[in-house]
Amino acid sequence: MKAAELPQNTNCSIWRSLEVLGQKWTLLIVREAFWGRTRYAEFRRIGVPTDVLQARLASLVEEGILERHPYRRPGERTRDEYVLTPAGRDLVPILAALAEWGDEHRPNPRGPASVFVDGTTGRPVALAFTDAVGTPADPSDVKMVRGSGAMAPTP
Amino acid sequence: MKAAELPQNTNCSIWRSLEVLGQKWTLLIVREAFWGRTRYAEFRRIGVPTDVLQARLASLVEEGILERHPYRRPGERTRDEYVLTPAGRDLVPILAALAEWGDEHRPNPRGPASVFVDGTTGRPVALAFTDAVGTPADPSDVKMVRGSGAMAPTP
Repeated sequence: MKAAELPQNTNCSIWRSLEVLGQKWTLLIVREAFWGRTRYAEFRRIGVPTDVLQARLASLVEEGILERHPYRRPGERTRDEYVLTPAGRDLVPILAALAEWGDEHRPNPRGPASVFVDGTTGRPVALAFTDAVGTPADPSDVKMVRGSGAMAPTP
Repeated sequence: MKAAELPQNTNCSIWRSLEVLGQKWTLLIVREAFWGRTRYAEFRRIGVPTDVLQARLASLVEEGILERHPYRRPGERTRDEYVLTPAGRDLVPILAALAEWGDEHRPNPRGPASVFVDGTTGRPVALAFTDAVGTPADPSDVKMVRGSGAMAPTP
């Protein structure tokens, strides 16, 4: 059994998310998609090597995070655009959590590069922990405990 | 200039967080730390190769996410425990966001391995987006827009 296939890893949704998203370029490509980029040439601008970009885009399509939409500019061949699926758009809290930690602990003197806003009101929003009835919890008091899907650690 | 050093990357707090956290094992080690593991032999149980674990623990200490506390069991040499710093504990929304996406899109049939609870009330909590006055925002309506620290993309 490969190390990464130990049951306490495969049972863990953090591990399963990182299987899809754990490479740095993957989440930066997703960041660009949230900023409205859809075309190969646009994703190239983040500096990702061509072969890595091709592999990551194919993987994100296979994992159901991006989907291909063909388009054709006059006089050119048909190309694919890459558009976030609903599962892809559900990644927004992961990007927001990464941005909030970076803004707090690795701040950019020019201010945040990414800001999260309510699409309806236009107001900035931030992540908060709330219980089932909406009562906010102090994040420094939130504990991460083992649930029904956790395996006992190997001895 | 290396690709990853393009200004639109270095200005971005998502990128800077991923510089610290982007390797899969790093966040799995942090997960173990949240579950209360502190000792080298405990971290080894997740299946991480020894050399990788040593490098990741050193990096997490250098980045201010874990700190070393010496301890000694009777008759043994002094060893280090690894304990989350306040900056390390601030990673809990990133782990919660990863767990929530995994539970939704890559569910474990046995149920979630990680559950997040309010340490005071013991009630389960989940991430929500709220504006400055605490009004919740529909996550599917949250947009990620470029802030003051974002650079124009290279042409």
